[in-house]
Amino acid sequence: ILRGGRDLFPLLPAAFEGVKSVGVIGWGSQAPAQAQNLKDSLATAGSDISVTIGLREGSSSMSEAREQGFNEADGTLGEMYDVISKSDMVVLLISDAAQSKLYKEVFAAMKPGATLGLSHGFLLGYLDSIGESFPEDMDVILMAPKGMGPSVRRLYEQGKKTNGAGINSSFAVHQDKSGKATERALGWGIAVGAPFMFETTLRDEYKSDIYGERGILLGAVHAIVEGLYRRYKSQGMSAEDAFINSAESITGRITKEISTRGIKAVYTDMSADDKKIFEKAYSASYSPSKEILQECYDEVKCGNEIRSVIMQNERVMSGKGQVGKIDGTETWQVGERVRAARVDDKIPLNPFTAGVYVATMMAQIDVLLEGGHSFSEVINESVIEAVDSLAPYMHYKGVAFMVDNCSFTAKWGSRKWAPRFDYILDQLAYTAVDKGAAVDSGLIKAFTDHRVHGAVEECCKLRPSVDISVSAPTTTKEIVIQ
Amino acid sequence: ILRGGRDLFPLLPAAFEGVKSVGVIGWGSQAPAQAQNLKDSLATAGSDISVTIGLREGSSSMSEAREQGFNEADGTLGEMYDVISKSDMVVLLISDAAQSKLYKEVFAAMKPGATLGLSHGFLLGYLDSIGESFPEDMDVILMAPKGMGPSVRRLYEQGKKTNGAGINSSFAVHQDKSGKATERALGWGIAVGAPFMFETTLRDEYKSDIYGERGILLGAVHAIVEGLYRRYKSQGMSAEDAFINSAESITGRITKEISTRGIKAVYTDMSADDKKIFEKAYSASYSPSKEILQECYDEVKCGNEIRSVIMQNERVMSGKGQVGKIDGTETWQVGERVRAARVDDKIPLNPFTAGVYVATMMAQIDVLLEGGHSFSEVINESVIEAVDSLAPYMHYKGVAFMVDNCSFTAKWGSRKWAPRFDYILDQLAYTAVDKGAAVDSGLIKAFTDHRVHGAVEECCKLRPSVDISVSAPTTTKEIVIQ
Repeated sequence: ILRGGRDLFPLLPAAFEGVKSVGVIGWGSQAPAQAQNLKDSLATAGSDISVTIGLREGSSSMSEAREQGFNEADGTLGEMYDVISKSDMVVLLISDAAQSKLYKEVFAAMKPGATLGLSHGFLLGYLDSIGESFPEDMDVILMAPKGMGPSVRRLYEQGKKTNGAGINSSFAVHQDKSGKATERALGWGIAVGAPFMFETTLRDEYKSDIYGERGILLGAVHAIVEGLYRRYKSQGMSAEDAFINSAESITGRITKEISTRGIKAVYTDMSADDKKIFEKAYSASYSPSKEILQECYDEVKCGNEIRSVIMQNERVMSGKGQVGKIDGTETWQVGERVRAARVDDKIPLNPFTAGVYVATMMAQIDVLLEGGHSFSEVINESVIEAVDSLAPYMHYKGVAFMVDNCSFTAKWGSRKWAPRFDYILDQLAYTAVDKGAAVDSGLIKAFTDHRVHGAVEECCKLRPSVDISVSAPTTTKEIVIQ
Repeated sequence: ILRGGRDLFPLLPAAFEGVKSVGVIGWGSQAPAQAQNLKDSLATAGSDISVTIGLREGSSSMSEAREQGFNEADGTLGEMYDVISKSDMVVLLISDAAQSKLYKEVFAAMKPGATLGLSHGFLLGYLDSIGESFPEDMDVILMAPKGMGPSVRRLYEQGKKTNGAGINSSFAVHQDKSGKATERALGWGIAVGAPFMFETTLRDEYKSDIYGERGILLGAVHAIVEGLYRRYKSQGMSAEDAFINSAESITGRITKEISTRGIKAVYTDMSADDKKIFEKAYSASYSPSKEILQECYDEVKCGNEIRSVIMQNERVMSGKGQVGKIDGTETWQVGERVRAARVDDKIPLNPFTAGVYVATMMAQIDVLLEGGHSFSEVINESVIEAVDSLAPYMHYKGVAFMVDNCSFTAKWGSRKWAPRFDYILDQLAYTAVDKGAAVDSGLIKAFTDHRVHGAVEECCKLRPSVDISVSAPTTTKEIVIQ
């Protein structure tokens, strides 16, 4: 784990040695934030490296890019292939589906020896799934901020005044043709405003990322809330209380506790009675959740999931699939009312909800560790991103809003996998609890003794000094989960 | 569509010309029924072709096979590879997972020029998914009874007295090395007791079969019942009434109406008020159901689904996946009580349930027709098997019992896809109805004008004269959906 920060800006010209022009391609969630941060940081460092936005001909985002200070007149805005062909470093931030469609043209347009920058390993996953690879004559690097674009920009702006504000990133060097790929990846991360950077590989990143958003980052949260909302209602709670004890408890209490004190503290801080409830829920939920998580991981790893995403995108494009919303069901309608009347201090830490949620998070961690992922990546993608980046946003706008407005890959994936978690928890976990299944003391001990806790508690200390910003006006931009 | 029947038994020796020994490999759901029927039919025809059971060394099924009259002493029971190597025709009825693991050894053990008989195209699907194919030096044929093994045997026995009793089959010739493959496939079907036989291809069979059991045959029924049970309860029905108006209405009324009078009659026989309710439910459900069905079809076609089944089997074998049951949830527990107190004549034809179910069946038909499947196959796999074979069994034992006790491929597939149907109907269909969405008169007209109805009504006339037998004592054998 490497430290970033504004005090390193003077090093940027050296990090980007050999790069005179950076082309940021796309204008989705990440591109506006990254382009503006890059531009500001390079200016602060006194560098004359140019940052240019490339968009497809006639893109409706042209005017937005102009409003943010990029324009054709000074050459900082242009047609994407033209920008690509003129850039020493191409930061490719178009959608996953667009990358899988246009990659050949993008590669062909790039200068020999240029650096390809990605903020997601999806393109490698796609190339893996069809047996292709990147052209050898380029650097391929990853710098993935663990948060949505608007937050990346807002925290960067706060970072100008408050030391340490920013969004952590992961980074990777997949091909190092120039011998300078590592410097460029780190320079890119520092320039975009990362306070800390976690090393990974491009392949591990796409596996853990696509898997994670289907799991505890988004899909599993959706599922746990739907299932527990139904359960609490059927046990006699009002609709509002059922939502408060499921969704609100996760996004407003449990994840905050994890963020500041670690995963284990959720349990150790409980009363003896609550601990018993937590233990029952944890014991019953861990294996069923892990079964779906393992399946999801295997599907991502073998290429099935990426093929599925591409096929779903083709169905949507051809009118055979919809991009419908989930937010019309009772659970999320009740959620709107609950948020409107929310008193933050009164949100309970429901021990049953905590048991199910923490069991699923631990199962997600175990699947990744068993899959050979590095500790820092596992914690970054399965814990920090969940509790510091996505949960606060879901708390602010609702789980359904997050699902309905994130990237295509994340949205469809979480909609695909959420029902699986919901059903298996209902069929195997909650039924076991209702039948009075005994607490699995071995599972509880494995939880409390788990080697992840020390590392997470260390990460709590590396926590950015400013909480993620969620007060941004809602845009129709897709929320990209990195 | 070809006619079978006992009156054709005298033709069996000619159909099996060149075959002196048939080896039936396995002792699951299909093998006992097919082996006994084959043996009885050949004896009736005065043929001396032997029927021998092949099982793996030490199989616990040996004693059951002996009880049914197969034994080592007269050479009609033996070790599987030994039996395979001595048979002119090998009827391979081991599980999908076993086929995918042992196919190389099976092929290697077969006599040159022998005929491989399958009752499911899964093995071809698996070979397709890994880029392999059958050895050229063999016939490969399919004969797939559209019902579970015990029903195949029981109706055959009834057929000895009642003309026309039996289970329809589909058949296919995939490789015809001997020039006699078609005769052998038809002879096999007649000998096992098919009153009618539907021609297909091995590839179309596995696609429509794996797809169908995830859809209206099983997975979608599970989903529709879970979703409507919740919905009716939330609208104020008692738990029992909610189950009667969802599960019981489908398995006890709607499918019987389709079986005897056709799909359209479900709608045209309704009162004007019920028609309005049906139209709303149909309009809202058709597209969401079709979206999941199209996805499922594409996943099967591209090989993803078969890879997933194999991976899940490996997880179960290695202890990373469970074979848990679904029958513990409230819906199915209530169902047990409802069945115990059932009065068949009082089961209502709920028009909303009918709208959702029929819309899903029509969507399933449309996806297959758009995929180029033959009319006879579409009707056989999506209508006749659903309403004449599986629905009566589910009515007798419950939907959950069927899911929990069918073949691994079907069980896991229906558990995988059911939650998807449930969520999308909840999110897109029922919410639309509740918001007062208008009836889509174009969709209703497409339904009433659909070219499938005439064909289904013709099939109602070809209906076996004896209803499927569901009074068999429950065994722990897997129920194999063909």
